[in-house]
Amino acid sequence: MQNIQSYITEHKERFLNEIIELLKIPSISADSAYKNDVLKTANVVKTSLEKAGCDTVEICETDGFPIIYGEKTIDPNLPTVLVYGHYDVQPPDPINLWDSPPFEPVIKKTELHPEGAIFARGACDDKGQMYMHVKALEFMTVNNELPCNVKFMIEGEEEVGSANLATFVKNNQEKLKNDVILISDTGMIANDVPSITTGLRGLSYVEVEVTGPNRDLHSGLYGGAVANPINILTKMIASLHDENNHITIPGFYDKVENLSDAERAEMAKAPFSLENYKKALNIEAVYGETGYSTNERNSIRPTLDVNGIWGGYTGEGAKTVIASKAYAKISMRLVPNQNWEEITELFQKHFESIAPNAVKVKVTPHHGGQGYVTPINSIGYQAASKAYQQTFGKIPIPQRSGGSIPIVSLFEQELKSKTILMGFGLDSDAIHSPNEHFGVWNYLKGIETIPYFYKYFTALNK
Amino acid sequence: MQNIQSYITEHKERFLNEIIELLKIPSISADSAYKNDVLKTANVVKTSLEKAGCDTVEICETDGFPIIYGEKTIDPNLPTVLVYGHYDVQPPDPINLWDSPPFEPVIKKTELHPEGAIFARGACDDKGQMYMHVKALEFMTVNNELPCNVKFMIEGEEEVGSANLATFVKNNQEKLKNDVILISDTGMIANDVPSITTGLRGLSYVEVEVTGPNRDLHSGLYGGAVANPINILTKMIASLHDENNHITIPGFYDKVENLSDAERAEMAKAPFSLENYKKALNIEAVYGETGYSTNERNSIRPTLDVNGIWGGYTGEGAKTVIASKAYAKISMRLVPNQNWEEITELFQKHFESIAPNAVKVKVTPHHGGQGYVTPINSIGYQAASKAYQQTFGKIPIPQRSGGSIPIVSLFEQELKSKTILMGFGLDSDAIHSPNEHFGVWNYLKGIETIPYFYKYFTALNK
Repeated sequence: MQNIQSYITEHKERFLNEIIELLKIPSISADSAYKNDVLKTANVVKTSLEKAGCDTVEICETDGFPIIYGEKTIDPNLPTVLVYGHYDVQPPDPINLWDSPPFEPVIKKTELHPEGAIFARGACDDKGQMYMHVKALEFMTVNNELPCNVKFMIEGEEEVGSANLATFVKNNQEKLKNDVILISDTGMIANDVPSITTGLRGLSYVEVEVTGPNRDLHSGLYGGAVANPINILTKMIASLHDENNHITIPGFYDKVENLSDAERAEMAKAPFSLENYKKALNIEAVYGETGYSTNERNSIRPTLDVNGIWGGYTGEGAKTVIASKAYAKISMRLVPNQNWEEITELFQKHFESIAPNAVKVKVTPHHGGQGYVTPINSIGYQAASKAYQQTFGKIPIPQRSGGSIPIVSLFEQELKSKTILMGFGLDSDAIHSPNEHFGVWNYLKGIETIPYFYKYFTALNK
Repeated sequence: MQNIQSYITEHKERFLNEIIELLKIPSISADSAYKNDVLKTANVVKTSLEKAGCDTVEICETDGFPIIYGEKTIDPNLPTVLVYGHYDVQPPDPINLWDSPPFEPVIKKTELHPEGAIFARGACDDKGQMYMHVKALEFMTVNNELPCNVKFMIEGEEEVGSANLATFVKNNQEKLKNDVILISDTGMIANDVPSITTGLRGLSYVEVEVTGPNRDLHSGLYGGAVANPINILTKMIASLHDENNHITIPGFYDKVENLSDAERAEMAKAPFSLENYKKALNIEAVYGETGYSTNERNSIRPTLDVNGIWGGYTGEGAKTVIASKAYAKISMRLVPNQNWEEITELFQKHFESIAPNAVKVKVTPHHGGQGYVTPINSIGYQAASKAYQQTFGKIPIPQRSGGSIPIVSLFEQELKSKTILMGFGLDSDAIHSPNEHFGVWNYLKGIETIPYFYKYFTALNK
């Protein structure tokens, strides 16, 4: 595959323009106001797969947003790679913290991206990384370098819990049959420290509502005599962690796998500077569960974070009111063996049990997913490792990620195949944050590396 | 004053139409978007005072919204009554909980207001109650029943802390010279249980900001390893009350007056049904400081309430984010002898001291005011008591209110005169809440009672 680099150099401009056009469409799946934009994005993805060389591409309707399915079969006896990605993006809030509009992509140089990075919501998560696979397919088909069969499944509800993907996968097991699943929706340690994600955390996302009096009250006339739902909510949330930042929900840790000292020692070898970490976030100190390192806290340990809280008067100036209701969005990151439905139930039971009888509490589960671990001795992992060695000139480090891609465990369960997470983004790319970006070098490096995965995976299967 | 009732009957329609017109203007002082409406309201008040018979009315500019000052002097040797009120209103949020638009007044019957009540923001607090004094003046001037001199001072910043009133009062002590200050900005126990407010709580209102990482973060990649400002804020707020709902700020209670058992026994005589109280608010149980009754908790004891809280993602759906910042608006109701500036300082020191070094904390004082108590043996109180006896046929009950009118203590300090709080609203009138209203009967009863106060106050001063 000598010509991959020259092909990329030759088509670099077009590769960039195509992803920029895709990023201009605000495909925010969480906000119904953007429904048409999400649907428009689905069509653009369909067309791009057809142009890239798929034999057939379908828009598969679901109860939510459609799933784009495409395939190219060159020989039924050859292995099949199933590529998964998503075309929906996170909401851009808080919008005022963006240096440029989230849906007007611009390329700017950064310290970590001297060749420039594309700034836009979805640049890295996941439009940019998903589109690397489309362009890699284009290269392989145009140059007759596709060594096996390929299937694409690109969904539009990943950022809202992939509610309808499960049904689709369950109902299309034959169609989706594959030998390995390939996903680029994670990151790597650094451009000169390639890594492959071997573990993911599970997720349980809930919304809570605390109701006090039946209407907003004057805080002078009622203050001190009536339960203030905001004060109560803060007490309830605060009580979910003890003084060691252990989560206090009964049974929460029962199934948490405890890594051996050897495994923890292996993890500790990954290059990490606490000083740089704190500097990058501008914090005086890190904060987390007693007895664990920062890299353990955000990967092998479960967490409970409030993702949003609101209640009462939040406008300009002052309003002396006791709100009738207070709300919070709370998510728990889970580790392998913790069952997200079980944890959601434990949370609900516990949260309702700690509410004083002066308030009413409602817990609404949003969505969730199981954690996942992939063995580094699998053919898929070995093929990926060789691909990185080819294009990065280094052996990638296997890494546990704190993030969650719930559908990975679903795939294993329903399709009986392992997933390889070839992520080319960096932690500092600010996914889910203002000024999300994706390095131009990383985008092109991904397009360069992916075809080698196909090559080695096919070879290792012979 | 036999003709007061017939005068009211004759002009009832007009009295109602005039207040309804005033209520149509959204004079929300807290929100700069309504600046012009606040100014427009000031002009309407000026005109109404001129029509009601004031010799002179001025619009006195301040650094904020203007103060309307009017006066009618019939004889320098006669006593002078200074009427205070405010023409600004609270924000109407949450707007969706109003049964009718807050600035499109409608008259509807309620269980407690069989003769109908005016539903609109400001109907009771304080446009409706302020306007009773304008109409009472009209009656007295038209019918030559004004027995003494009268001054009006109507401000437009009461709902945002009367920031500029203090300066105005300090700079106009001669102009504002008076023998008693009359205010209708409080309530009474019930239409058949008239009461006069003899005590008010002070107020300290602050806003807090907790900053964690310098940007919003992905809760999967950073969750568990970095201080989440929302979780931290909930811990900090929760710690401000102990298990007995005592406030934990060091020194907070040092100057709180402790009422004698006799005084508490006297208070306990006020008619009160805990069952009806809970029923009216649809709560299973009340909630407050151990060792005190509901009526004590909301009047003679200080409190700390969160009036608003916000941070992270509060939109539709789910966003797995760790916010960079979390905010809360917190107000403390204070009792006589507690100094609000001192308490604000204690709060700030304490709140900063309990913040873990993984976050930064900013405390911004909004505004405040001292508590107040008026003696029931004063001429002013006696005159008010006799006025109520005349129009209600009952001796009014002296009552401590949990609310705050910070400027009352300012008046005493600067103008050396006592304030009489003749409030005609009911707790259930939902001031500061959706569906604020003011009984038509109460409005007219106020207009009927006020002239008797002038009569008896002048007589008792002879």
